[in-house]
Amino acid sequence: LPEPTIAAAPGAAPGAVFESDFLRACFRRPVTRTPVWIMRQAGRYLPEYRALRERHDFLTCCRTPELACEITLQPVRRLGVDAAILFSDILLPLPGMGVEVAFEPAPRLARAVRSAADVDALRVADARETQPFVQEAVRLLRCELKVPLIGFAGAPFTVASYLIEGGGSRTFSATKQLLFSEPALAHWLLVKCADTVASSLVEQVRAGAQAAMLFDTWSGVLAPEEYREFALPYARRVLEAVGRARAVPRIYYAGESAGHLEVCAGVGAEVIGLDWRQDIGEARRRLGPALAVQGNLDPAELLGPPDRIRRRVAEILGGARGPDGRALGHVFNLGHGVLPDTKPEHAQLLVDAVHELSAGRP
Amino acid sequence: LPEPTIAAAPGAAPGAVFESDFLRACFRRPVTRTPVWIMRQAGRYLPEYRALRERHDFLTCCRTPELACEITLQPVRRLGVDAAILFSDILLPLPGMGVEVAFEPAPRLARAVRSAADVDALRVADARETQPFVQEAVRLLRCELKVPLIGFAGAPFTVASYLIEGGGSRTFSATKQLLFSEPALAHWLLVKCADTVASSLVEQVRAGAQAAMLFDTWSGVLAPEEYREFALPYARRVLEAVGRARAVPRIYYAGESAGHLEVCAGVGAEVIGLDWRQDIGEARRRLGPALAVQGNLDPAELLGPPDRIRRRVAEILGGARGPDGRALGHVFNLGHGVLPDTKPEHAQLLVDAVHELSAGRP
Repeated sequence: LPEPTIAAAPGAAPGAVFESDFLRACFRRPVTRTPVWIMRQAGRYLPEYRALRERHDFLTCCRTPELACEITLQPVRRLGVDAAILFSDILLPLPGMGVEVAFEPAPRLARAVRSAADVDALRVADARETQPFVQEAVRLLRCELKVPLIGFAGAPFTVASYLIEGGGSRTFSATKQLLFSEPALAHWLLVKCADTVASSLVEQVRAGAQAAMLFDTWSGVLAPEEYREFALPYARRVLEAVGRARAVPRIYYAGESAGHLEVCAGVGAEVIGLDWRQDIGEARRRLGPALAVQGNLDPAELLGPPDRIRRRVAEILGGARGPDGRALGHVFNLGHGVLPDTKPEHAQLLVDAVHELSAGRP
Repeated sequence: LPEPTIAAAPGAAPGAVFESDFLRACFRRPVTRTPVWIMRQAGRYLPEYRALRERHDFLTCCRTPELACEITLQPVRRLGVDAAILFSDILLPLPGMGVEVAFEPAPRLARAVRSAADVDALRVADARETQPFVQEAVRLLRCELKVPLIGFAGAPFTVASYLIEGGGSRTFSATKQLLFSEPALAHWLLVKCADTVASSLVEQVRAGAQAAMLFDTWSGVLAPEEYREFALPYARRVLEAVGRARAVPRIYYAGESAGHLEVCAGVGAEVIGLDWRQDIGEARRRLGPALAVQGNLDPAELLGPPDRIRRRVAEILGGARGPDGRALGHVFNLGHGVLPDTKPEHAQLLVDAVHELSAGRP
């Protein structure tokens, strides 16, 4: 594994990044304390985000580098998390493929992609042409941040499911119907999604993102057999492209993965992001000793009382330790995005509890 | 384990029930072929059900024994499944607790139960008083059916989550907030739900249902730790009450359980119902040799082509066999309810494929 010595961007504090517990944990190296960040840490639960959103709509925020940069920085300033994640959305590459997206706030696509003609019409988007604002936001952030910046994208299956459904879904019936009835067409769609997503993530890394995260939020709706066929190979394709571009740690968030976690181990990531529906210690045993893990507190725990939050943090920190009692390779996080009705004080309590309870216990 | 020799109700064909492959599979005894039924086999995907629903609303169908009986029989006549399941709904006991429910078609409760006063006001319903129509439907069905009748109820956590949310939910935030912030109140609510549900299920069994199924559809939204605290003990309480009433097989449907399946093994059921998000062979290994399993084809597979359905049926039949190659203790089913846009011919194809591919291979 490469040393986590990420070259600093112009203007960034190189020491801060070099000493990053977050990057060290991703590469399973000793840390001073367990690093922590929060999925969707920049978002609606923060009053400063809501204030900014009163003046700018969601897409404008994503597409304006200065706004995306400011929103990305908000939770870093407030909470003292160990990593920043670019404010963006997994569906931002879709217009580059030829499908417009509206956020109402749930995403609604201009059209669903279901026929061979629909798939044929999709472009593989080169992110340098279609999302220059994302790369510009990354460059701005590298001049501001003293913690590593995580770039991200949606995994191909998850992005394809939005394209097929034309938005969100509960049963993913249309997606599965396409996969099962026309597997060749599905694979063609997945290749186009993978190459578009890879371009998006690679260009974020080239612009300076020090870690790359792939969100496979919906692949857990598949049976293990079908996960292996329709989700895993395309996620691997993206992560391999990132690996060829830069030696940054790659984090693969596997939603609802308890039924096929061993399969996820082969995705080509350094870190597997876990949801809260599985025990983190058991998950580590299933993933094997080579991988780091990220997770996995139920976001709803932050709606509960402070003493309970501390207790659950302690339990997860304990569970993530190896049989030798060492806390190598654990990035603390929620098991899914923070809920909008979370009190910011409870997010703060989480971050502080992780730092305090893990300090001096490498 | 008791012999699966269920006394026949007046008018029923005793031999048919005695020879039931379904009951034999539940008790892990040799079968002539793998039995199969389909969750929500009586429902919207059947034209004869839709025709009947044009004249009667959903609740009227549930509460009128002759209608519930007719709807229960529809898929048995059409498909040749190995078991019938009473047409009813897991929320039917709620009015007896003091909370009316409307189906629009998603369930909406007259009020949400969140405060101590709300929980205090809930009654523990005696199903003999509050749901006599259910027991009457069971008695009618026992005179008509030549296959075993499954009675069912919602598991306490799942029922409680509807009460707390006031309907369905995606994140179960209100439920979890109550559990985490006021665990004593949550336990009080769960006891009331458990005793109400137990009465409903026990009275179905006393009226003649030859198997009892408990649907814990939503308990998979909990982390394993919290599943152990808030879901498992109450499901066990219900299943123990059923066991004291009659020696019928008890089936526990554990939705999204791949992260805590070993825990489910202790629920006190003879059969664990699996969703499709886990490999059935792996699930059997985790559950141990004493339990039968039910499942676990993705309902969306029935939207796909016939040859694929047959292939997936064969794979699941193969996966469910033990290391000795024997198919003991497997009831074939979907991993969740059949989707409303399923073609009835594909449900037929499923039933026929299970029977044909498993015949003569005990």
